[in-house]
Amino acid sequence: MNFDIAAPDRALAPALQRKIDRKTKPLGALGRLEPLALQIGLVQQSLTPALRRPHLLAFAGDHGAARAGVSAYPQDVTWQMVENFLADGAAVSVMARQHGIALTVVDCGVAHDFAPRHRLQVRKIAHGTQDCLDGPAMTHEQCLQAIRNGMELVQALPGNVLMLGEMGIGNTSAATLILTRLLGANLINATGPGTGLDQAGMQRKLDVLQQVLDAHPQAVQPLEVLAAFGGFEIATMVGALLQAAADRRVILVDGVIVSSALLVASRLEPLVLQRCVYAHRSGEPGHQLILDALHARPLLDWGMRLGEGSGAVIAWPLLESACVMLRDMASFSSAGVAEKSA
Amino acid sequence: MNFDIAAPDRALAPALQRKIDRKTKPLGALGRLEPLALQIGLVQQSLTPALRRPHLLAFAGDHGAARAGVSAYPQDVTWQMVENFLADGAAVSVMARQHGIALTVVDCGVAHDFAPRHRLQVRKIAHGTQDCLDGPAMTHEQCLQAIRNGMELVQALPGNVLMLGEMGIGNTSAATLILTRLLGANLINATGPGTGLDQAGMQRKLDVLQQVLDAHPQAVQPLEVLAAFGGFEIATMVGALLQAAADRRVILVDGVIVSSALLVASRLEPLVLQRCVYAHRSGEPGHQLILDALHARPLLDWGMRLGEGSGAVIAWPLLESACVMLRDMASFSSAGVAEKSA
Repeated sequence: MNFDIAAPDRALAPALQRKIDRKTKPLGALGRLEPLALQIGLVQQSLTPALRRPHLLAFAGDHGAARAGVSAYPQDVTWQMVENFLADGAAVSVMARQHGIALTVVDCGVAHDFAPRHRLQVRKIAHGTQDCLDGPAMTHEQCLQAIRNGMELVQALPGNVLMLGEMGIGNTSAATLILTRLLGANLINATGPGTGLDQAGMQRKLDVLQQVLDAHPQAVQPLEVLAAFGGFEIATMVGALLQAAADRRVILVDGVIVSSALLVASRLEPLVLQRCVYAHRSGEPGHQLILDALHARPLLDWGMRLGEGSGAVIAWPLLESACVMLRDMASFSSAGVAEKSA
Repeated sequence: MNFDIAAPDRALAPALQRKIDRKTKPLGALGRLEPLALQIGLVQQSLTPALRRPHLLAFAGDHGAARAGVSAYPQDVTWQMVENFLADGAAVSVMARQHGIALTVVDCGVAHDFAPRHRLQVRKIAHGTQDCLDGPAMTHEQCLQAIRNGMELVQALPGNVLMLGEMGIGNTSAATLILTRLLGANLINATGPGTGLDQAGMQRKLDVLQQVLDAHPQAVQPLEVLAAFGGFEIATMVGALLQAAADRRVILVDGVIVSSALLVASRLEPLVLQRCVYAHRSGEPGHQLILDALHARPLLDWGMRLGEGSGAVIAWPLLESACVMLRDMASFSSAGVAEKSA
């Protein structure tokens, strides 16, 4: 596959930095807001960046491996939570509404048939992936179809910024398998309690995940890894990320599941990373491994581990503050304020 | 002085925690948003807390010690920046507008006479404090008057939440002196570059601050320390903080200057602390010392060191997210979502 993401153009960086430095504040005094503003300015190639029509796409899918007991929750919670998203009851629903962020749920492969609904897009590959203990979670063709679905969804999206979220019982396991294999990490350092396993549950999860890794020694390339471990929502996000980067959207990255999709996407096309802002450092240990590998510094360090895109939505106004600073703050000369005497 | 702040009433805490735990998410999965929601619920003694009519009071004052060259900026920048606040050009102005936060500037003792203005309150004690190298920055009477001014300002304020900001060339030095003396800290560990001193400037600042400390060995009690080192804006904030706590307002604490006022207030009445949320960890080393002493964990760690209340205003929507979660998110039973199987 070929993804048409423009190489970084940093020609505007000195002008952006100068504009930031002439604002009525000491050099660097707004801390991390300043490089954030610079990055958004570069993504948009503008000295007056503006984030328009923010949208959260929440990708949902089921996992064959969930039947092996790798999650604290039954598989039906996936479709029940999708209904909760659509009924405005989920964490991500209420915080998206708080900030005026549009929310669309994408059924990428939930083991349930939803009635047609406003704000629900159906891009179902199958009713859940196969159990990756028995073989690959999906075929190569399914994997490519999911990626194409993600690309098409983003192409049709208004605005210039993308937040990604997800729902899928068992998808912390899929993300852990992907990142463990792609980073060559130690499984025990990458595995966490997900949505709340106890110690016995953690040991069972570790045993299952090790068996899955052992069952797929040939899965090494990013698309092979993705197809082997799943899930459909992660594959669809890979396409969405690549398309968003090609479209010069600002991408606000959530926790470990979204980051595992980004890891795959970045192995297919490293240029995707220049568009990414990292919302938060999750409490899931595998997330830290990905952030380290991508040299990423998230905005919040709150120990969140919910998924849904909840971290992205909470962090959203911080991105708007960066733009507001760059666009609207006065300069020393425009405000008639004396500059540093030293 | 006597401050009528009710003792903590944690009777509602179990009901709040139960409500948070029944939301459609794993236990604790929203990380720091959850204790934040619990705290705001306790401050408001409500299971459905709501932050109404948020207001930032920006306290401005000049410092006699600024003439000794402890800041990188000339003293005129204080009044020039007040004009910039009022003209909507400062960092705090543009971000307050972003979030619909009302902004009022309080002239607590700027060495300049302002024309009357919408959004400017004049509570001027004098045209700047005295140089604390030569004697106390203010008299005991001036100190008490400033505290009373802060209390009256907050009594007249609508809403149920207070953000505090400040402007005053030299006030990082005043804050550093206050915290060093009250915490028994080592000056060198408490002193930073403020708004941007170079290394020679830092050494000069350290020398001056050590001289000031040596000139006031008798200043030990909180009001003595406050009067000795100033400034008027810090003293006015002490009163504002105590009144806000008595009124059961949620207080969103900014950086080192506001925190130095809080340190004084907490020595006068420790009960003030239960109302406080800490917006950010600033890049100024003295701030870390205060946060440690107060066992405070700020929401953001962005290396900001601007003052103005900019950190509080940036962090503001995070508090709203906590309330939205508590008020609007569905519970497992209301949403028809299955609970954890384990």
